[in-house]
Amino acid sequence: MKLATYRNHRRDGCLMLVSRDLRRARPAAPFAATLQEALDDWERIAPLLQQASAEFDLAHEGEPFDAARCLAPLPRAYQWLDGSAYLNHVELVRRARGAELPSSLYTDPLMYQGCSDGFLPPNAPLPLADADWGLDFEAEVAVICGDVPAGASTEVCGAAIRLLTLVNDVSLRNLIPAELAKGFGFLQSKPRSSMAPLALTPDELGDAWRDGKLHLPLRVEYNRQCCGQPNAGDDMQFSFAQLLAHAARTRPLAAGTVLGGGTVSNRDRSLGYCCLVEARTLETLETGGARTPYMRVGDSLRIEMRDGSGHSLFGAIEQQVVAP
Amino acid sequence: MKLATYRNHRRDGCLMLVSRDLRRARPAAPFAATLQEALDDWERIAPLLQQASAEFDLAHEGEPFDAARCLAPLPRAYQWLDGSAYLNHVELVRRARGAELPSSLYTDPLMYQGCSDGFLPPNAPLPLADADWGLDFEAEVAVICGDVPAGASTEVCGAAIRLLTLVNDVSLRNLIPAELAKGFGFLQSKPRSSMAPLALTPDELGDAWRDGKLHLPLRVEYNRQCCGQPNAGDDMQFSFAQLLAHAARTRPLAAGTVLGGGTVSNRDRSLGYCCLVEARTLETLETGGARTPYMRVGDSLRIEMRDGSGHSLFGAIEQQVVAP
Repeated sequence: MKLATYRNHRRDGCLMLVSRDLRRARPAAPFAATLQEALDDWERIAPLLQQASAEFDLAHEGEPFDAARCLAPLPRAYQWLDGSAYLNHVELVRRARGAELPSSLYTDPLMYQGCSDGFLPPNAPLPLADADWGLDFEAEVAVICGDVPAGASTEVCGAAIRLLTLVNDVSLRNLIPAELAKGFGFLQSKPRSSMAPLALTPDELGDAWRDGKLHLPLRVEYNRQCCGQPNAGDDMQFSFAQLLAHAARTRPLAAGTVLGGGTVSNRDRSLGYCCLVEARTLETLETGGARTPYMRVGDSLRIEMRDGSGHSLFGAIEQQVVAP
Repeated sequence: MKLATYRNHRRDGCLMLVSRDLRRARPAAPFAATLQEALDDWERIAPLLQQASAEFDLAHEGEPFDAARCLAPLPRAYQWLDGSAYLNHVELVRRARGAELPSSLYTDPLMYQGCSDGFLPPNAPLPLADADWGLDFEAEVAVICGDVPAGASTEVCGAAIRLLTLVNDVSLRNLIPAELAKGFGFLQSKPRSSMAPLALTPDELGDAWRDGKLHLPLRVEYNRQCCGQPNAGDDMQFSFAQLLAHAARTRPLAAGTVLGGGTVSNRDRSLGYCCLVEARTLETLETGGARTPYMRVGDSLRIEMRDGSGHSLFGAIEQQVVAP
């Protein structure tokens, strides 16, 4: 099934069922008022939602689906963890800031705990308070999981994946080096991220979802030019199940935890980039200096994933940079 | 007013009003079913709760308050940020692991984003899956805030402090060096923290709450021996308002954000320690080796703060280490 959250007068919005063709929507009530409510009691509620969703797909009822009314599918979450499973990205970004590559890179996932108290809606403006902060986007695939016990195996973690979506993990690049030098990870350098309009159960993805990876190209348009379309299933060193197991090694993960796979990045450079810092690093390596500036007021961004038939799976993240 | 959350069949429990003498309790319904619900609409709900609380204090109704029924006041939160405002602790801990002191230590708070998807109840057993992980406690004062806009001033942040409580910020010391070396902050080395039974509005603290600091001793008993009673108002380099402003520099903070001030630690060594690593560091400096082991199965911990008349303010965190 395909789920979205419409804006209403409440912080968690109104959970909606969306038809497979993204044309129609209906409230998920009476089964669940919000996505967190569904995730809290998934074993009981998901079958009801699946049934209602299947019936809704066959019917011709409901209102037209309107992405402009969407909040993030999970407008606030109890946890946001972001792995860096695409090592090509890790290598380029660390090279860009002159940081060392950890020796455990291939066996021990890099992951940070980020802010989850608000995910921006898919069409939210991206506020840029200070151009010197170096605003960058990062296009990612993310999973939303159910309860995971501490020390859970990769298999248990894989089975706990409830939904997938897309995330724009916003970075303030010029704040990162000083912050990481303090040793406590990202804080000011990672403001709120945005989510695609839709979250999908894995069955909606057919065989593109296998081995805990989503094998489809993630397309990014920056200022209306395609700058990247790497395949999210390629060059991903750790599956989502492995990333969840890493996070759950010493603690349980609560239902509604959102876990990102990191900026999608392929070694094949013809497939472009999903964040500006990769372009800047390559320019620096090739010409001695970065030509591509970080985002500026007025810049636009579109992140989308289509299936083999060209149909949008999650709807599009479409954002524009604004002065706050 | 004094608020607690009782265990029921729901994840967020049942919000309770507790009498000033901690003897009686009543449900906070019909005003708010959960603490998050109250925080989400504080301007409207808090005056109703304050009024009900004042009436409850004068009456002789209600059931006996039972700390054993308590979850954390906020059983799950959208954000947990932990500052390190007591520089004596920072200096000792970093010396212990041979890490450098950042040059900006006195002007730029150290802060990390930790897991907030579950806070342990005040009486929850502390699971120790692997004794080699180096389980340690950290006794802290924490604030719970309302909505804070991005870039908010220290004054605005101070006014957004809704509640105070105590936290045991659990650390797995032996996992920290390798994790911090990866550069992305704490993840596996900081499992779930626990909270005291009660969260108090600042007015309950009288003039012990001033300048954005709580000027009372925080008493820690480890295996029934007092190991520390430093004053939480002393040697705190940054006030809670300053810590919130640091967190909000590039992003808003949502209502229900929990922010810790870091392990309380005074420069006067006669006042002891609120975490084992400080004892171990001092032993190492004095004798060349640490004698105090990290926590072991069966160890007990009690964290409490009393007012000038000896009355417990937040109830006690009382935990015992268990094999999982």
